[in-house]
Amino acid sequence: MAESKGALIAKTLQKHAGRTKEKILQNLGKVDRTADEIFDEHLQNFNKQQAQTSRLQKEFNNYIRCIRAAQVASKSLWDAVSDVYETSWQGRDVVLQDTQALDVLWQDYSHKLADQVLIPLNTYQAQFPETKKKIDKRGRKLVDFDKERHNLQGLQNSNQGKQRNEARLGKAKENLDEARRTYEILNSELHDELPALYDSRVLFIVTHLQTLFASEHLFHTETAKLFTELESVADKLATDCQRGAYTLRKSTTINSNAASPKSPISSNSTK
Amino acid sequence: MAESKGALIAKTLQKHAGRTKEKILQNLGKVDRTADEIFDEHLQNFNKQQAQTSRLQKEFNNYIRCIRAAQVASKSLWDAVSDVYETSWQGRDVVLQDTQALDVLWQDYSHKLADQVLIPLNTYQAQFPETKKKIDKRGRKLVDFDKERHNLQGLQNSNQGKQRNEARLGKAKENLDEARRTYEILNSELHDELPALYDSRVLFIVTHLQTLFASEHLFHTETAKLFTELESVADKLATDCQRGAYTLRKSTTINSNAASPKSPISSNSTK
Repeated sequence: MAESKGALIAKTLQKHAGRTKEKILQNLGKVDRTADEIFDEHLQNFNKQQAQTSRLQKEFNNYIRCIRAAQVASKSLWDAVSDVYETSWQGRDVVLQDTQALDVLWQDYSHKLADQVLIPLNTYQAQFPETKKKIDKRGRKLVDFDKERHNLQGLQNSNQGKQRNEARLGKAKENLDEARRTYEILNSELHDELPALYDSRVLFIVTHLQTLFASEHLFHTETAKLFTELESVADKLATDCQRGAYTLRKSTTINSNAASPKSPISSNSTK
Repeated sequence: MAESKGALIAKTLQKHAGRTKEKILQNLGKVDRTADEIFDEHLQNFNKQQAQTSRLQKEFNNYIRCIRAAQVASKSLWDAVSDVYETSWQGRDVVLQDTQALDVLWQDYSHKLADQVLIPLNTYQAQFPETKKKIDKRGRKLVDFDKERHNLQGLQNSNQGKQRNEARLGKAKENLDEARRTYEILNSELHDELPALYDSRVLFIVTHLQTLFASEHLFHTETAKLFTELESVADKLATDCQRGAYTLRKSTTINSNAASPKSPISSNSTK
């Protein structure tokens, strides 16, 4: 058991070392590298798509956080307004009713943003790490393939005219075929998956924007309606106020004269 | 100089000690306390008004903070949306224009809330601490007045039938008159100022609400209009998308077949 584990580690290390060596040789220009310009284009699109989606997700998360904070702040503000809006002032029932309706609108709005916009965005974004793993694996398998290719080339060059080591050549060909197969399966899958994923962005963004715009539109339209009503309540209250309907000062002054505040009444303290 | 400072401190301490003694005696019910029920009513109104205004100010400050955060978050979100909205998609100019207009609406809105709603609220609130100081001073002067009153009563009781200490009695009467005058001036001023301040709340709240509701109404109405337009842009894009106008997959697949991704092209690395 311990031996087979040791053997596995040794094999993995050998594989990594082989890849590192191949990549160094490629980077030094000592050996050629298999190129696939169309794949590179897909990869560029994938990276752009992933970066844009990450940004959208980050900004949208922040936006929702702010909307939720504003929702709570709005509720507290309208509670405070309802508290100063005295029972004797006209339109108080409308103020109470409309500020409660405002809270419901905020709730619906922030719920919709989270449920219908953020969740699909998260699901869409979740595809990228999986695909990224596959892209990285394809990259490793491509290095393996190049390594086996160069290995065979090396053997063929050193064997020229010698007609020996057929066994080693056969094994190298076998390894190359296996490395090519592994690479080509992944490569072929990604040649299908990457453009499909990239194309899917249009429908996703369109649906995302439709839902987002619709939520915003509904919230602002309904909120505007409530404020139209609240504005007219405040205007009526202003008219009442100008007519002096809520000025208690005169009567208070009369009362205070009657009680002669300038000649303090003495009374026994009950404390 | 040092002596007069010392004398001043001694006098202040004596005054405080005298007041404390008078208040203890009043609280124990040993001496009577001058009552002014109308003033107490004004004071109750003042305290209620101050508490409500403090709450309104606190909630409104928090609301503005959240609105400003949402304004920044909204700008960043629409920037990210503009970034994913590709140049080849129809309606991009409308999206750019409308999201910029949204930012202007947010700016105007948060500026109006700060400038036309918060500043007047702060000015209104700033009256209370000054008035509170005056109320406290009146309270102290009332204790002084009661103290002098009880002092004179004490002297009069102990002097019954003795006809002496006329000088002390005269001084006590003088002190009482002075304490009464000081108290009555403050009391009379507050009997005018407190109901006036209390009455001013109606006009203040009405104006505050009118401005607040108007700012909200304008912001939500104009924002709703922009989202109506943005919604129709997204709907048109969705129609295009359903017609496959932005699907590049087919052509990409043809290209990738042409380049035979399954048979890697070998090329010399330039690195």
